[in-house]
Amino acid sequence: MTQLEMARRGDVSPQMKSAAKSDEVEPEVMRQGLAAGTIVLPANRNHTSLRPTAIGAGLRIKVNANIGASAGDADSEKAVARTRAALDAGTDTVMDLSTAGDLDEIRRRVVAECEAPVGTVPIYQAAVEAGAEDGGLASMSEDHLFEVIRKHAAEGVDFITVHCGVTRATSELATGGGRLTGVVSRGGAFTICWMRANGRENPLYARFDDLLDICRESDVTLSLGDGLRPGCLADGSDRAQVEETALLGELVLRAREAGVQAMVEGPGHLPLDQVAPNVVLEKRLCHGAPFYVLGPIVTDVAPGYDHISGAIGGALAGMAGADFLCYVTPAEHLGLPSASDVREGVIAARIAAHAADVVRLGKRARQWDDEMARARGSLDWERQFRLAMDGDLARAGHQPAGESGQACSMCGPYCVFSLLGRSTASHT
Amino acid sequence: MTQLEMARRGDVSPQMKSAAKSDEVEPEVMRQGLAAGTIVLPANRNHTSLRPTAIGAGLRIKVNANIGASAGDADSEKAVARTRAALDAGTDTVMDLSTAGDLDEIRRRVVAECEAPVGTVPIYQAAVEAGAEDGGLASMSEDHLFEVIRKHAAEGVDFITVHCGVTRATSELATGGGRLTGVVSRGGAFTICWMRANGRENPLYARFDDLLDICRESDVTLSLGDGLRPGCLADGSDRAQVEETALLGELVLRAREAGVQAMVEGPGHLPLDQVAPNVVLEKRLCHGAPFYVLGPIVTDVAPGYDHISGAIGGALAGMAGADFLCYVTPAEHLGLPSASDVREGVIAARIAAHAADVVRLGKRARQWDDEMARARGSLDWERQFRLAMDGDLARAGHQPAGESGQACSMCGPYCVFSLLGRSTASHT
Repeated sequence: MTQLEMARRGDVSPQMKSAAKSDEVEPEVMRQGLAAGTIVLPANRNHTSLRPTAIGAGLRIKVNANIGASAGDADSEKAVARTRAALDAGTDTVMDLSTAGDLDEIRRRVVAECEAPVGTVPIYQAAVEAGAEDGGLASMSEDHLFEVIRKHAAEGVDFITVHCGVTRATSELATGGGRLTGVVSRGGAFTICWMRANGRENPLYARFDDLLDICRESDVTLSLGDGLRPGCLADGSDRAQVEETALLGELVLRAREAGVQAMVEGPGHLPLDQVAPNVVLEKRLCHGAPFYVLGPIVTDVAPGYDHISGAIGGALAGMAGADFLCYVTPAEHLGLPSASDVREGVIAARIAAHAADVVRLGKRARQWDDEMARARGSLDWERQFRLAMDGDLARAGHQPAGESGQACSMCGPYCVFSLLGRSTASHT
Repeated sequence: MTQLEMARRGDVSPQMKSAAKSDEVEPEVMRQGLAAGTIVLPANRNHTSLRPTAIGAGLRIKVNANIGASAGDADSEKAVARTRAALDAGTDTVMDLSTAGDLDEIRRRVVAECEAPVGTVPIYQAAVEAGAEDGGLASMSEDHLFEVIRKHAAEGVDFITVHCGVTRATSELATGGGRLTGVVSRGGAFTICWMRANGRENPLYARFDDLLDICRESDVTLSLGDGLRPGCLADGSDRAQVEETALLGELVLRAREAGVQAMVEGPGHLPLDQVAPNVVLEKRLCHGAPFYVLGPIVTDVAPGYDHISGAIGGALAGMAGADFLCYVTPAEHLGLPSASDVREGVIAARIAAHAADVVRLGKRARQWDDEMARARGSLDWERQFRLAMDGDLARAGHQPAGESGQACSMCGPYCVFSLLGRSTASHT
């Protein structure tokens, strides 16, 4: 039985208990959210090292880091190093998006190393193995795609992105010339190329029931990908995006019906004022399924700083109800992220998530900020470093000033906490 | 006559024309905003090198960078280097917040070097010269404080932060023990210490008319400081902050009455859901005066990354109507920013400002994003670098992939724009 099926029967599984504990909610809250489909608990029964982590309404917003190898950097060691960097920086989940190197080896190593839930995009492997690099994508067989999915499921992948909403009908809306950047999802683009070359419907849509069978068996959570997501502000919230989301809502219900957990992916690039409306829309059209957004990036003009543009959109999305933030690194739109890009990306997304959690969860989240405020007011630097999201960086950046070293070099002898005495701060 | 007085008489000054042109609005729009007090044009008639820049409703959101020397880094060369770094990164204004070194020399050099409007906080100099470092703050004379203000005005400072709302009554609300971090504004703390030691009212409040006389003479814009701003999420939107804002609203009307331009400063640290309400409140209580926010930072737990926490709050504030964003650098809460911190801080604030401008100004702001989207869709890297907010960084971070070098190393041969052909993007 899947976590969804157990929850529906009224059973609280060990995974639910563990995830509830780490999220500081009652196990029964976790069970009810799972039963309703507003929470997912990606926990493939074959991922033996997993520390269960849940995603959804009423829980702390989770952060995902994409790692993996690309052409030119196909070394599995480096992919594992990026995974470590992401985990060290505090990511909640990891997605292996490799498209080069020994894909099976990389994925197996990542799953084995990772206590966090691991996600993949199986169509990448299927496309790469069909020779997409040399124009062979059209020869990718449906059976091979399902074989890859079966393998990922059998080997412990906890959630998979599947672009089931990229159909012949919806993709026409995105490629018809009305967009500035057309289709920017790799999985979406693979699917469209394949459909065009073969004159057939997207197998992940046409054979959605086969997909559900595979997922139910190992309890793989579906992450219904937004292959038609906007790739720039101008394309945000257009008909292609909205119709795909509506179709994904239909598939959410079919997944739930089959006992398979499902969440839904969202943009991408959006103007600031479309971020909250997109969350409301997803929650409505997709029946409260957890919402997993990529950024969103709120301006297109700052390559090299897209972790910041993404943190702005992510915080706003989180406050509006998004449950899961895929990080964006400083390397986005420029190249494959280095380990240090991975770290910066994870921290930026965690800042966005926590800022939203302060609103979403109240005191439960804000007590961390309050403790930091007290440490700051009493000039207790060691405690500030211990509490900091990135304590090593804070310690390295600190410049003590004055003989006692209590103030920092920003204000030196004019530090407000020295001037007024710590008495003005109430350390309760 | 001040810009405000000219605008009220119906005159469009050369400064208004120039500022209107750079903001792409009609001169008459600029004049009306100035006359109504919803726009300020900080243009001290003694700042001869000034390129006029306006701040307020209907205009592009402006960004300020704080530079200046502190104890341990009192070199005027370095202060000028930080000013250059800020201007190179695209700041709209600069504030010299020096509290060490030859304060007059530093300020004069910054004003002379700077085509952008320059701001100061005169009480810093008055307090330093009174020997605040050695406990001499109480000896600061009212006359000396006004002398310093007169000097800054005579030497071309375009706007000054004055904490006129920190009165004996309002400060009691902030220091009475109900806050976690009491008072975190340096100017606010100086004022409170002085009031306590002398048993007198804040001279910048008690003698507000004298202040207005000085400002009118050189057309110095008042930036009414929020000396009681919250220093952590827990202290956000409390009674001290709100009552100070209400008092500043009263002073805005008195300034306008006297023909003196005024804007109002705001937080600081705020939970995400209090950002927009704070803007609404300021606009209402302060009669539409331009709102100048510091950040706001939306979590206290990420020292070393406060430029990101500040960009989140700044974008949200800007979308809600804030007009002027004071940058926050990665060094905030840790030390005095380096030139590279200054650069990162300015870019982060500019990202926030532009993301909000896309909503605030529509097409006028978004055409930049649309041009970038087209350059991205056609894999025109040179054009992407030219359009990027930080072109040098984007160029340095770019990792070409493949023989043609058209794709980047993120996707390599699987670049969506290669896969689907650039035909799916409509390059109109």
